[in-house]
Amino acid sequence: MPRISEKGAQMPASPIRKLVPYAEEAKRQGKTVYHLNIGQPDIATPAVVNEAIRNYDEEVLAYSLSAGNLSYRKGLANYYQNKNIPVNTEDILITTGGSEALLFAIMSCMDPGDELIIPEPFYANYNGFAQTAGIVVRPVTAFIDNGFALPLIEDFEPLINERTKGILICNPGNPTGYLYSKEELKQLRDLVAEYDLYLIADEVYREFCYDGAEPFSVMNLDGIEENTILIDSVSKRYSMCGARIGALISKNEEVVSTALKFAQARLSPPSLAQLAGEAALQTPQSYFDSVVTEYEGRRNIMVEGLNQIPGVRCPKPSGAFYCMVELPVQNAEHFCQWMLDSFDHNGATVMMAPAAGFYKNAAQGIRQVRIAYVLNNESLHAAVECLKEGLKVYPGRIDQMVKDNFEIGPSIA
Amino acid sequence: MPRISEKGAQMPASPIRKLVPYAEEAKRQGKTVYHLNIGQPDIATPAVVNEAIRNYDEEVLAYSLSAGNLSYRKGLANYYQNKNIPVNTEDILITTGGSEALLFAIMSCMDPGDELIIPEPFYANYNGFAQTAGIVVRPVTAFIDNGFALPLIEDFEPLINERTKGILICNPGNPTGYLYSKEELKQLRDLVAEYDLYLIADEVYREFCYDGAEPFSVMNLDGIEENTILIDSVSKRYSMCGARIGALISKNEEVVSTALKFAQARLSPPSLAQLAGEAALQTPQSYFDSVVTEYEGRRNIMVEGLNQIPGVRCPKPSGAFYCMVELPVQNAEHFCQWMLDSFDHNGATVMMAPAAGFYKNAAQGIRQVRIAYVLNNESLHAAVECLKEGLKVYPGRIDQMVKDNFEIGPSIA
Repeated sequence: MPRISEKGAQMPASPIRKLVPYAEEAKRQGKTVYHLNIGQPDIATPAVVNEAIRNYDEEVLAYSLSAGNLSYRKGLANYYQNKNIPVNTEDILITTGGSEALLFAIMSCMDPGDELIIPEPFYANYNGFAQTAGIVVRPVTAFIDNGFALPLIEDFEPLINERTKGILICNPGNPTGYLYSKEELKQLRDLVAEYDLYLIADEVYREFCYDGAEPFSVMNLDGIEENTILIDSVSKRYSMCGARIGALISKNEEVVSTALKFAQARLSPPSLAQLAGEAALQTPQSYFDSVVTEYEGRRNIMVEGLNQIPGVRCPKPSGAFYCMVELPVQNAEHFCQWMLDSFDHNGATVMMAPAAGFYKNAAQGIRQVRIAYVLNNESLHAAVECLKEGLKVYPGRIDQMVKDNFEIGPSIA
Repeated sequence: MPRISEKGAQMPASPIRKLVPYAEEAKRQGKTVYHLNIGQPDIATPAVVNEAIRNYDEEVLAYSLSAGNLSYRKGLANYYQNKNIPVNTEDILITTGGSEALLFAIMSCMDPGDELIIPEPFYANYNGFAQTAGIVVRPVTAFIDNGFALPLIEDFEPLINERTKGILICNPGNPTGYLYSKEELKQLRDLVAEYDLYLIADEVYREFCYDGAEPFSVMNLDGIEENTILIDSVSKRYSMCGARIGALISKNEEVVSTALKFAQARLSPPSLAQLAGEAALQTPQSYFDSVVTEYEGRRNIMVEGLNQIPGVRCPKPSGAFYCMVELPVQNAEHFCQWMLDSFDHNGATVMMAPAAGFYKNAAQGIRQVRIAYVLNNESLHAAVECLKEGLKVYPGRIDQMVKDNFEIGPSIA
């Protein structure tokens, strides 16, 4: 029997989907499971999208251009221009989800062994794309104490060497929900300009900013137009994750034309979903207004509820629909599994994503979880209550362990 | 300005789409262009597919499972079982087109620097996938004289070394249209078993076999179940190339579970298109019968027409909808370009794919083109006529050059 590759063996399994078997078992036992573990919103896709799909009328479901339909690229350029983000049709390559856009960006700019600096915690699948492309992730740690703000530039600089090709950020951030300020982005701009690095920005949560905050795109950073690559996706913006339509965008023509060669090899992005994505451009502003109001309310319920639980810490995020939560437990992954297989509160339990997988150095996230507030208010209230009750009786609590140790002997804590 | 990667620089541009600007210019000049250059069939997608799309009724267009919808995988297993191809639900990973399936297969089984043997001419994008994964293609040449039959096993063996991980075939073949016999496949089976290699088979043209020929799947080769990987796609089978739905199939659980990790990183295959793919499973046999009859007729028109042109050679293929054609020209790529930018016959011209890009050693295909017979009979007749007239006056004809050389002086030919 032939062996699989080292690349494949080293490929990380999704930390977000890792606990799925325990959740399935919990459901088999009749428990209600509140899914706070995955960024699949419950928000309805805009009506214009469904209408376009239901009006589909092509005799042949044919390939599109490898770069995506021209009419869609034109419409998308218009979407950015309306937000004062300078993007033209020729800067855009339509991809199969933001995932493919990021993979094309990495492979177009980086060779195996090259290094990419990423503030951690970061979206776990960045590890998978790095492994796929054979590049090395160099993390620079952001901390819960200041809500996961951009690490100091002094923390980036020691990581830069001759193999360093770029910096990757997610803004607003998954998993932190942190929205980088214009000032933070300008600090990154100066760093990128000084070392002539690529700045790749995953801005798929652009529409989800709260308390009146305005997102600032890397495409609006002056002087690094040739260094900047924007990764985008329709998945979260229009709650159409299943479409698998994203975009790679850059003013650097060589990057776009190189990415196009990878795109030609896979022929074209999905045609039906492009039709849906193009229709989504007609989504009225009222849709976004109500979605943002909804998420803002959910965030408030979640963050306030969590911070009232003894020993729990959760900074208030300004964007996306995630929060990072520090729990009074020794090992958050064990706690998440215990919640599924050993606990229920009134027949219900909560599924969360252990945060270790969002760090390159897993130990940094050992006590943290990522929570996605993608359920309605009632469910969120119930989930917080359930988490609170679970923490009361969980045997691996930190204060519980300290107490146990104290009772046994003084020197183990 | 930062530099693009060496990987990106070396990535081949699609040889099939290379001449597109010349075709566009020809159309601007008012010429009719017969597109024989690309495998985009004009055949209508089955009505059951369009019906399913038009009945779409989900509130949220959500992610599917990373491995694809379970109901679709079950249905697909049933499709194979009805063809006596032993495939179970758990052997199947749904992918974004056959392209992604092949990339996942390569990356799951091969590390950068590993070698994959492929009979040439082969589907040009195999070069792109190899470049993406950093692996090395070792070609073994098939020849027009015997219609591109499987090369002798003695030609494979000298290529096998400690970096050789597998053999990749396409059956029925793109670009050759050759259908491997059961005997040829058994020869490959013995070779694969002897050296414990992977045998990856791209069988996306399975439904297109002519003159009563029956395709034989690698999944039916006994004794190499752990070595065999089947690549499939709905693109050609149901004339729904734009769906971007394929599958990686293997009895080797480790291969499937490794490929699943790559699949998890990109979250899920397109949801809408999976719905379309599942609906396509209900396509009646009468659809395939009439499509095969149609293609068989086209192939006859094409092959008979081509072989009547002086100096042209075209073996009669038993499958797929391509033929490889040897032309009496010095350089087929130059001829293809000339047809677009310098020739017309009654206001029309023909676009073909120069075959050099289907060979690892481009020189092998310098006088050949790939023709896709994806137009109706009338257009095919006109295209053959047009090609014949073009060859009469093309200045780069081999006999023309010989004559010119003879007139100038004897020693240059």
